[in-house]
Amino acid sequence: MIEKKQCLTDTYLYREIYQQPEVLHKLLKDETNHIQEICEQIRKRKVDHVVIAARGTSDNAARYAQYLFGAKNRLSVGLATPSLFTIYKSPPRMDNALVLGISQSGSSPDIVEVLVEARDQGALTIALTNHPRSDLGEAAAFTIDIKAGKEHSIAATKTYTSELVGLAMLSAYLLEDEEMVNAINHLPMWMDETLKIADEINQITERYRYMRDCVVIGRGYNYATAFEFALKLKELTYTLVAPYSSADFLHGPLAMLDTGFPVFVIAPAGMMFPEMRNFIDTLNEHRAEVIVLSDDDRLLRKSRIPLRLPITVPEWLSPVTSIVPGQMFAMFLAHYRNIDVDRPRSLHKVTRTT
Amino acid sequence: MIEKKQCLTDTYLYREIYQQPEVLHKLLKDETNHIQEICEQIRKRKVDHVVIAARGTSDNAARYAQYLFGAKNRLSVGLATPSLFTIYKSPPRMDNALVLGISQSGSSPDIVEVLVEARDQGALTIALTNHPRSDLGEAAAFTIDIKAGKEHSIAATKTYTSELVGLAMLSAYLLEDEEMVNAINHLPMWMDETLKIADEINQITERYRYMRDCVVIGRGYNYATAFEFALKLKELTYTLVAPYSSADFLHGPLAMLDTGFPVFVIAPAGMMFPEMRNFIDTLNEHRAEVIVLSDDDRLLRKSRIPLRLPITVPEWLSPVTSIVPGQMFAMFLAHYRNIDVDRPRSLHKVTRTT
Repeated sequence: MIEKKQCLTDTYLYREIYQQPEVLHKLLKDETNHIQEICEQIRKRKVDHVVIAARGTSDNAARYAQYLFGAKNRLSVGLATPSLFTIYKSPPRMDNALVLGISQSGSSPDIVEVLVEARDQGALTIALTNHPRSDLGEAAAFTIDIKAGKEHSIAATKTYTSELVGLAMLSAYLLEDEEMVNAINHLPMWMDETLKIADEINQITERYRYMRDCVVIGRGYNYATAFEFALKLKELTYTLVAPYSSADFLHGPLAMLDTGFPVFVIAPAGMMFPEMRNFIDTLNEHRAEVIVLSDDDRLLRKSRIPLRLPITVPEWLSPVTSIVPGQMFAMFLAHYRNIDVDRPRSLHKVTRTT
Repeated sequence: MIEKKQCLTDTYLYREIYQQPEVLHKLLKDETNHIQEICEQIRKRKVDHVVIAARGTSDNAARYAQYLFGAKNRLSVGLATPSLFTIYKSPPRMDNALVLGISQSGSSPDIVEVLVEARDQGALTIALTNHPRSDLGEAAAFTIDIKAGKEHSIAATKTYTSELVGLAMLSAYLLEDEEMVNAINHLPMWMDETLKIADEINQITERYRYMRDCVVIGRGYNYATAFEFALKLKELTYTLVAPYSSADFLHGPLAMLDTGFPVFVIAPAGMMFPEMRNFIDTLNEHRAEVIVLSDDDRLLRKSRIPLRLPITVPEWLSPVTSIVPGQMFAMFLAHYRNIDVDRPRSLHKVTRTT
């Protein structure tokens, strides 16, 4: 007997992907004043650099923050090494830092521990979470609620994009930059437009039914997108995926490339264009199977399988929309592989690491 | 006609792996005074955090520095995002930071650019390189020569361990900690002992002749070792390898695990023991093929294929010796696969990324 195929539109994952415009709308509506207040407090302090503690999907949001706060706010951002706090019990000094904890559940003990230590050291602490009453929410001086509503699916989608937008709001209001704020306010609409890519993604996904491994490339703002797309593929489809920046890939991993090896390149239009163009040329010279996600025709023409982003958004906000095709690709591929997209094997919604 | 098999002992890679005790001896002998002088200068400044720019193997040395400077010197360490400097032209402020550039060749433009900008901002800059007269060496206020001698093989081995030891010397002399200095001085001897593992590694490697992909796990100090072992496997054997910290692996990638999937666990004795024990138990529950590299019998007994480190070194220095079996494993596996270990496909010794 053939097992009954899951009806995709009935799954939490499907619905949560489609809730994203509405979640962003709610986040912008409900949290703007609160974030403005927090930014006033931050400006009163002499914040010198930023340290972020996060795991999994939230760690990919932290990767976005490295570029966002770096380029826009000129703040150097480091990712915390929780084991220094929880295992070696020898945490670094962070008194002049802004310490940010990002976690959907707010309950991974290692992330909470970083925030507790930072607060004890006198650092300014902020939590970004979907559960403001969690241990993480309670530990931080300021807590931003990402307002995503309950996320049932084990693979995080709407909480990732709302974390990104929470970070974008922090960056913009810290600078009191009207143009940035304006752009952020367009995001629910842009997200709506981006969701229209679903059919196209569904059509090309079947080709990868038996893909066993692949590489995902992104650089700059979309380094985060490469990591998050890779994580969705691992969680939902059990593919072995390695994410890289284009520069890191050339320093060694390039040797792995064989004819037909699938390489996904996340390359929305922007300053990263020349880098991505040259990189795609290198991939083609090695006869890789190049799948380009972009809104730039010049890059799409160079790819074996082009994935056209339906709209162009400012590069610094492009990670919010450019992950959506990745979420969908992973969902459709899991479906073609008869995997329950809401409950991939071995995983639980909340992972408590120490 | 069967192609003539490469004689491994005639290769640069083989010889460079075996040069490691001698290189470390030379580094300790020639650079100690210079590093002490640099540390005096660092102490005069109010260094608040550390930013490191590096790529490839040197980026893995930077990962070691995150734990070393964090745990021992209580300095928060962030890894630089070079594209903010070279592509977005919007570098973060780093005036209170110690900015470190690590590069074997000293000639990757993106890494040089980070140091130039840091110096222009008034930050304290240090280069760690095998070519002190390179652009990187010239850009930094202080340059530490890692004294590895010319490295011919494309895959870096002796320059990696000498970068690690250069960092360890910085950490120890910054603290003027005699116990640490003492331990560092034992490294050439410990390295000599570790090289005796060669036959054992050679014997178990053949089993992995057809391994297509695998995962390498390390956490804390040996997070760096996991990344560097993974990089050697990619460069030399074209295996698709994903390195993870044990904690990150549980936040998603765990779903990839299938019966017999090879997972290498780098777990020298130390504070990380309970974490590694629990993690190996989880792997066994999922029926993975667990290969443990350790000097701790309790962990070795839990593994399908145990790899016993010949000696025990203090955990904070264990990355210097624990990478050696990884270098050898990658070399022997490449040899079993008839790959020229000195010239893996697609790679050049110096990679110039921007």
